[in-house]
Amino acid sequence: MKGLFFALVLLTVLAVPRPGPAADPCLDCHAQKTPGLVAYWRASAHAVRKVGCIDCHGSDREANHAGRVTVDATVCGGCHKAALTTHRASKHGAGLKAGMGCTRNKAKSDERDKSCSLCHKTGSAQPIVQVACAMFLAQSPAMQRQGCLACHQVEVRCDSCHTRHGTDLSIARSPGVCGVCHMGPDHPQAEMWETSMHGVLYSQGRGTGAPACATCHMHGGSHDVSRGISPDGPPDAARISKERTFMLSICAECHTPGMAARSLADGDTIREQSGKIVAEARAVVEDLQREGLLSPAPSDRPPHPLAGNKFVIGPHMLYEDLSSVESLFFKLKQFYAPTTYKGAFHQNPDYAHWYGNAPMKLTLSEIKSEASLLRQVQALKKRVDNLAAVPGTGGAEVEDMKRRLREIEELRLKGEISAQEYEKMKKQLLDEKGL
Amino acid sequence: MKGLFFALVLLTVLAVPRPGPAADPCLDCHAQKTPGLVAYWRASAHAVRKVGCIDCHGSDREANHAGRVTVDATVCGGCHKAALTTHRASKHGAGLKAGMGCTRNKAKSDERDKSCSLCHKTGSAQPIVQVACAMFLAQSPAMQRQGCLACHQVEVRCDSCHTRHGTDLSIARSPGVCGVCHMGPDHPQAEMWETSMHGVLYSQGRGTGAPACATCHMHGGSHDVSRGISPDGPPDAARISKERTFMLSICAECHTPGMAARSLADGDTIREQSGKIVAEARAVVEDLQREGLLSPAPSDRPPHPLAGNKFVIGPHMLYEDLSSVESLFFKLKQFYAPTTYKGAFHQNPDYAHWYGNAPMKLTLSEIKSEASLLRQVQALKKRVDNLAAVPGTGGAEVEDMKRRLREIEELRLKGEISAQEYEKMKKQLLDEKGL
Amino acid sequence: MKGLFFALVLLTVLAVPRPGPAADPCLDCHAQKTPGLVAYWRASAHAVRKVGCIDCHGSDREANHAGRVTVDATVCGGCHKAALTTHRASKHGAGLKAGMGCTRNKAKSDERDKSCSLCHKTGSAQPIVQVACAMFLAQSPAMQRQGCLACHQVEVRCDSCHTRHGTDLSIARSPGVCGVCHMGPDHPQAEMWETSMHGVLYSQGRGTGAPACATCHMHGGSHDVSRGISPDGPPDAARISKERTFMLSICAECHTPGMAARSLADGDTIREQSGKIVAEARAVVEDLQREGLLSPAPSDRPPHPLAGNKFVIGPHMLYEDLSSVESLFFKLKQFYAPTTYKGAFHQNPDYAHWYGNAPMKLTLSEIKSEASLLRQVQALKKRVDNLAAVPGTGGAEVEDMKRRLREIEELRLKGEISAQEYEKMKKQLLDEKGL
Repeated sequence: MKGLFFALVLLTVLAVPRPGPAADPCLDCHAQKTPGLVAYWRASAHAVRKVGCIDCHGSDREANHAGRVTVDATVCGGCHKAALTTHRASKHGAGLKAGMGCTRNKAKSDERDKSCSLCHKTGSAQPIVQVACAMFLAQSPAMQRQGCLACHQVEVRCDSCHTRHGTDLSIARSPGVCGVCHMGPDHPQAEMWETSMHGVLYSQGRGTGAPACATCHMHGGSHDVSRGISPDGPPDAARISKERTFMLSICAECHTPGMAARSLADGDTIREQSGKIVAEARAVVEDLQREGLLSPAPSDRPPHPLAGNKFVIGPHMLYEDLSSVESLFFKLKQFYAPTTYKGAFHQNPDYAHWYGNAPMKLTLSEIKSEASLLRQVQALKKRVDNLAAVPGTGGAEVEDMKRRLREIEELRLKGEISAQEYEKMKKQLLDEKGL
Repeated sequence: MKGLFFALVLLTVLAVPRPGPAADPCLDCHAQKTPGLVAYWRASAHAVRKVGCIDCHGSDREANHAGRVTVDATVCGGCHKAALTTHRASKHGAGLKAGMGCTRNKAKSDERDKSCSLCHKTGSAQPIVQVACAMFLAQSPAMQRQGCLACHQVEVRCDSCHTRHGTDLSIARSPGVCGVCHMGPDHPQAEMWETSMHGVLYSQGRGTGAPACATCHMHGGSHDVSRGISPDGPPDAARISKERTFMLSICAECHTPGMAARSLADGDTIREQSGKIVAEARAVVEDLQREGLLSPAPSDRPPHPLAGNKFVIGPHMLYEDLSSVESLFFKLKQFYAPTTYKGAFHQNPDYAHWYGNAPMKLTLSEIKSEASLLRQVQALKKRVDNLAAVPGTGGAEVEDMKRRLREIEELRLKGEISAQEYEKMKKQLLDEKGL
Repeated sequence: MKGLFFALVLLTVLAVPRPGPAADPCLDCHAQKTPGLVAYWRASAHAVRKVGCIDCHGSDREANHAGRVTVDATVCGGCHKAALTTHRASKHGAGLKAGMGCTRNKAKSDERDKSCSLCHKTGSAQPIVQVACAMFLAQSPAMQRQGCLACHQVEVRCDSCHTRHGTDLSIARSPGVCGVCHMGPDHPQAEMWETSMHGVLYSQGRGTGAPACATCHMHGGSHDVSRGISPDGPPDAARISKERTFMLSICAECHTPGMAARSLADGDTIREQSGKIVAEARAVVEDLQREGLLSPAPSDRPPHPLAGNKFVIGPHMLYEDLSSVESLFFKLKQFYAPTTYKGAFHQNPDYAHWYGNAPMKLTLSEIKSEASLLRQVQALKKRVDNLAAVPGTGGAEVEDMKRRLREIEELRLKGEISAQEYEKMKKQLLDEKGL
């Protein structure tokens, strides 16, 4: 039996189709225990091509049963070489390297963390990717697994989009699959496409093929989802122009080039305008920080996983332990600004305007208005400090308190109140004076 | 005619199929006046089995035409006994008893309230269920009917899920029907399922049956929707373990038991973490209440339907007449916390994280930050009180006001201003002094 | 060639079907360059009836290629006369006239604005509609085009609902097409219908035709979408009653008249209640404005496009440069109130209650609570002013500052600090005193 396993492993490495599922040592049992999973596989191209359980899962039965085996992208890429190469060339493939992963700087934890395999080969401490996302690090391991990593593992997990045991490509190509991650407050691309005219035509299923996600972002079946969109990183006019030309060639299948170009140029303008509003809001928050008006102050917060007690407002900004004004800023830069310009690029007026632009501008107003209130209170505090510092006036406030402190101290000395009662009354008095 | 009616009523009570719709006294007219409704019925299993109008609606034509007849669950349960029994064993069946209803403590209203029939047999003052939900009581009768009760009548109304005159079970089993109530800010289960990989596979309609609501929550067609989920009420380890084992047996149709168990265990952890954040936020609000910093104070609010002018923050907390900080807390505990852990249990990273966890933590920040601001203002007030109380200093403020009050009183006495003008100037002066 | 163009233009004016697409001078090239568009057209009723490119686009090839030609409703109305007439009779047709447009009062802009054609015939300065919506005017031209006008051009653009080159009416009748505009925070009709029992039955596609948008709002195929709903403008009992009777006749196809009438009457009540909450919130904001407590004050804001620096809270209220309390009010009146009553009219308990009523009332609470805080701070300011104004007390604050100003002035005179350093220290001192 061990010899058979060894032979199968060798065959896997050589990527030669297996003799046949009949020989598979897992099937008999799993057809009873996990029938749905086996049925998916039986109906798959893998079954037809005789790619069986251990071709992907390996032959270590115990490790598999203990949940220690992960079928990652390198396993799939053994056969699907072009898909893996183009995937890795895209933003999807650079996910963890680009700072979208999370566990690199994580403190050791008692809890065994399944996500190790995202950055390390099993049994190795050598990282295979560079990751440093503070936002992930601030979450519990359970939330990291069910929240962050369920999407941000896309670099190393083909089953982010493909079903695990079936091979029906219509599922991987369906906009719903993209939407599992590309939805929600931070980037509602699924919703904005679905409710745009493109999405409506697609749902109606008529005509000559209305565009879904893959039509524009995986053109010709490529796994490089970054084609046709403005590249991240430092501005690169040649690259930007090349990608735009590529995207317009897709639009041209249905639209005149001028119409499409004008629409995307509006998207560019709206992205730039949104960026300015984010910068304006950020400057307000930074000013408040300099003026010591954020409460809690960064120095009074639980330490930031990467920056400790420093003030953080850039990409590593957390969404916990913030002041109100930072909470507003977080929503503006993380939710409303991207929704505004992505809504424009996806031709959805409601997302560009009502889900994006309107709350973005309302939130900017709220940030400024809150800043104004904080400054008014601060100015009042200074004036009261000044009044209280003038001898014979506010100073009297302090004298009055001293007199009352003496009174309760006397009570304690006389034994009329206990030491505990004294401390309580003293605290009460200080509270009452706002000290 | 009356004899025929009586005979038909008797037959209904005996639950024996009617001789045939041909004899139905309603059909001729309703086929003209409400054709859609009659068409639904004609295509139904009821029509085939000769269950006609008066079998469900009774034979009191006038009461029916006046809208006084409700076909409630006991009518359907006359034939569908097993469905009613399992329904009643579930949370759905215990809805009103469990405090999810609303009208019990309702003040008498001039408006005749159709919802009486939810708690009373027609013509009886004896309640058939125990209901006590303050949140419902605070709403207008129209909002109770169109908002609260449209869903919370599920205990007594089979047409909450089943169509009224059709019997097509594919509708009652469709996830959309569950979603009519299980959606929205308080518990977006429909949305989180639909945009999870489970929902996407279901929409694509491929493979071996991706799970919809009923797959897991009405397994085998049972109407006991509470199977497999953590029971409400005091912790009961044996029951919790039994229900989890049941749910995992459903997961096992497609997933390995370890994988499914780890996923649901993460859900447990995330629910516990969310509960702690709710408790932390609640403690801040309760502290502010003790410090008298909620504005409006509970004593200054319109009376709570159950608690009068007492402070209420538990399950009977209303969402009206609150202070800002309570409004934030309401959203945290009612919207964001359940969305976080229900998102995890439904394997939806965007709901667990971006619709749940992120706003939950942002809102906790906002609550604390608002509390800090309220305390700063309060401390300032105390210091100004102290300054004003020192003779010859703030006392002068009062003296200054008295002097100016005397001046305008003099003008009034001299007849240079009218009594009305005097009152207006006096008010202005007090306002100006902030008194 | 010019002669052929001229002849074709003449034929267009006469609305006589063209000799045949074979003669169309655009097709050869566009079949290569924009194949999707041509394929749509070839499959259309227009192609069958030999209505070709220049029948709608005209024969000015250069103008078309330069994007200067717009196919507006008058072009379509040349043939589709009844549709245009009923469209114009409805709210859709009155869109720009009713103040839903935007560009009339727009300052001249360097950027050539494509939206000119909405109000002017090409080459004419004479407005063809009266438009005056401040909310549009405050947005950038790019946001106007991609946000506002993408929907608000419905008056003059049939392709708001109909596809441009196809004529498949099932698309124009699909609820998704209505939803492209009738969705989102301001009026989520698409979402509330889709997740109501009506929408669920429609999605399941069973029975005798569950109602979608067009069933009730374009009954019998009419383009007058305003039939059956409460008319805008001054109350008109006769008209209201007539429209309600019409709508109930549609409901009666499936529902008893009493049931439908009670449901819509609840909608009326809920609309009235929502209006009162808007009015209550508005009064709070107006009071704050009178008390000078809005920050920024209207006088300190960038000028409103129509009202300059006047305070604006009605239909022309902007969503930018507001104080926090106005931002809250904007959301209440523009998002939550309409969602509440429209949710009731569309029989969606979650929209009526959780997306509408609950945030509407929570926001009212927040507005009042914020107003209370602003007044507390204001009252404190007045008291501190009074304390500071009393000779020998707060006056000492001013004296203290004067003394310190003299000190630094002396340093400057002695040359110990530069003029620049002096200004900086002076500013610092004033800031410290909160002046």
